[in-house]
Amino acid sequence: MSELRQNIITREWVIIAKERARRPHEFVVKGPPKIDLPRHDPLCPFCVGNEAMTEGETYRSGEAGEWDVRVVGNKFPALDRAGERVRRIDGVFRSMTAVGSHEVVIEHRRHDLSPALYSVEDLRRVLTAYRRRYAELKEDPRIEAVIIFKNHGEGAGTSLQHPHSQIAATPIVPAQIRHRLDEAIRFFDESGECVFCTTLASELADGSRVVVPGKHFVAFTPYAALSPFHLWIFPRRHQSSFDETNDEELADLAATLRTLLAKIHHGLNDPDYNFSIRSIPAREGHREYFHWYLTIIPRIARTAGFEIGSGMYINPAVPEESARFLREVQTH
Amino acid sequence: MSELRQNIITREWVIIAKERARRPHEFVVKGPPKIDLPRHDPLCPFCVGNEAMTEGETYRSGEAGEWDVRVVGNKFPALDRAGERVRRIDGVFRSMTAVGSHEVVIEHRRHDLSPALYSVEDLRRVLTAYRRRYAELKEDPRIEAVIIFKNHGEGAGTSLQHPHSQIAATPIVPAQIRHRLDEAIRFFDESGECVFCTTLASELADGSRVVVPGKHFVAFTPYAALSPFHLWIFPRRHQSSFDETNDEELADLAATLRTLLAKIHHGLNDPDYNFSIRSIPAREGHREYFHWYLTIIPRIARTAGFEIGSGMYINPAVPEESARFLREVQTH
Repeated sequence: MSELRQNIITREWVIIAKERARRPHEFVVKGPPKIDLPRHDPLCPFCVGNEAMTEGETYRSGEAGEWDVRVVGNKFPALDRAGERVRRIDGVFRSMTAVGSHEVVIEHRRHDLSPALYSVEDLRRVLTAYRRRYAELKEDPRIEAVIIFKNHGEGAGTSLQHPHSQIAATPIVPAQIRHRLDEAIRFFDESGECVFCTTLASELADGSRVVVPGKHFVAFTPYAALSPFHLWIFPRRHQSSFDETNDEELADLAATLRTLLAKIHHGLNDPDYNFSIRSIPAREGHREYFHWYLTIIPRIARTAGFEIGSGMYINPAVPEESARFLREVQTH
Repeated sequence: MSELRQNIITREWVIIAKERARRPHEFVVKGPPKIDLPRHDPLCPFCVGNEAMTEGETYRSGEAGEWDVRVVGNKFPALDRAGERVRRIDGVFRSMTAVGSHEVVIEHRRHDLSPALYSVEDLRRVLTAYRRRYAELKEDPRIEAVIIFKNHGEGAGTSLQHPHSQIAATPIVPAQIRHRLDEAIRFFDESGECVFCTTLASELADGSRVVVPGKHFVAFTPYAALSPFHLWIFPRRHQSSFDETNDEELADLAATLRTLLAKIHHGLNDPDYNFSIRSIPAREGHREYFHWYLTIIPRIARTAGFEIGSGMYINPAVPEESARFLREVQTH
């Protein structure tokens, strides 16, 4: 029989559909390997030499022509740098000016790589750029939430091949983040503990869903994983927002994330995926009850009408089997 | 500048991305028309004559060999008919037996149609089957929520071509439905009004997002539409769950839904879509603060890391323009 599992952090239930479950190797992406890209594309706005094709640089590591990572403005920003938050309430019609920030992190000089193929040092530089921009953006009093995310592959919503990620800063706290905060506070009220710290300790004690137990970070499939190979990376030390991570921890995160992405890349034949870093809302500061984490969703299963009608997911993979499969993938 | 809009019913914010907005005709599905299907496929388990390939029939309109609509068990059910609800709590690991129901509604005898091409009478028969099964399933004391949904096209999650929809009954109230109930109660506390009734009255007064103003039902694009051509159909009369709809209203819903789906089909070149019917949780009965509705999501835009990281959507279409476009599509 299938099983319902509840995510203790979000209170969401998921159906682990054992009747229709597929074995881990059945999720390996089929079809020819992705197109071989050139190391440099003279038409790519993110390639070296084309820096004039981007605007609003807010970060660069390395010298102008010799950069490793750059952060620039999104050419079609969903949120604008300039302007004030103006809220309009006209009965049930409620709106606000879309001020905030929408930046692109150009992760690497090379056009043909993806994070699974970076060196750990390459990835550490990307995470350092994230952390810096996170800390700077949250100083802006108009900003309520900073969301760092990556779309890898067309099925995950990207149109540009050059490896990049994005940072969006919103002038409101999204409803989903507010709900999670409420749940975390409620758990803290009941137990005096952070629900994330408690979950991490329980996952480490159980062990069956742990994929990469790093020194400062642990990668695992959630007990109530939403979809096949859904993964979380939690910092071991209690931290509410991404910019609380120190240099030593950031280097370990680079190693853990690099290993995990390489396992996904080699084990599942480079699936499209999204990852995002979820922190406490920007104005909250450090809180005992909230813990930042990184979530990875390979785009392997499709959501359909059931998910749209209920907000609940049907996961056709058993989380423990997904974790075992990834543990066994060799990455060197 | 782009605009943030808040959905007063869910409290979710959406970014109406005017900078990157596309005009309605840019969302028309490109590529060759879908494969011409035969009227009857001897290998299809849902076709006439193959009734023995399905099990657990719970509804049939018409005689055995002359049926119009059948409801049968899903071959790979995510939720099982038999068994008791057994909840297990082991620290943070919380699970339940996946009892409930998962049925398939075979909507039509013909293999080659879709609801946009049905007669209104065909669609009325399908809705009648939904209503009957809804009412019967909710009598089961193990059931907390009944979700009726349709996946049209491969991009919307279906694998079988024969026109069908699904009914899932869960032994828990999904977190998202619980959150919406909470918000509806809060609105009622503040105003003494149903938030859905208030929204409908405001949309009718404004008019710019109304697509089909039927006698008993109104189809419109939500003010804070999540994605291009996201649509809602609300009953005009206050009703908490789908089975409160009477025969006259059901006939009008068939006409309204048929017109709307035909507009989508002809105007956007038969995009994949999902629809679902959202009712109050099964054990709640009639409440002043909650109103059932039908939601349609054409699968035109892709969700990506931003949506995963925040729960917030970026809509690259302006809802008023989508509504105007659909109003102008001729369906006969």
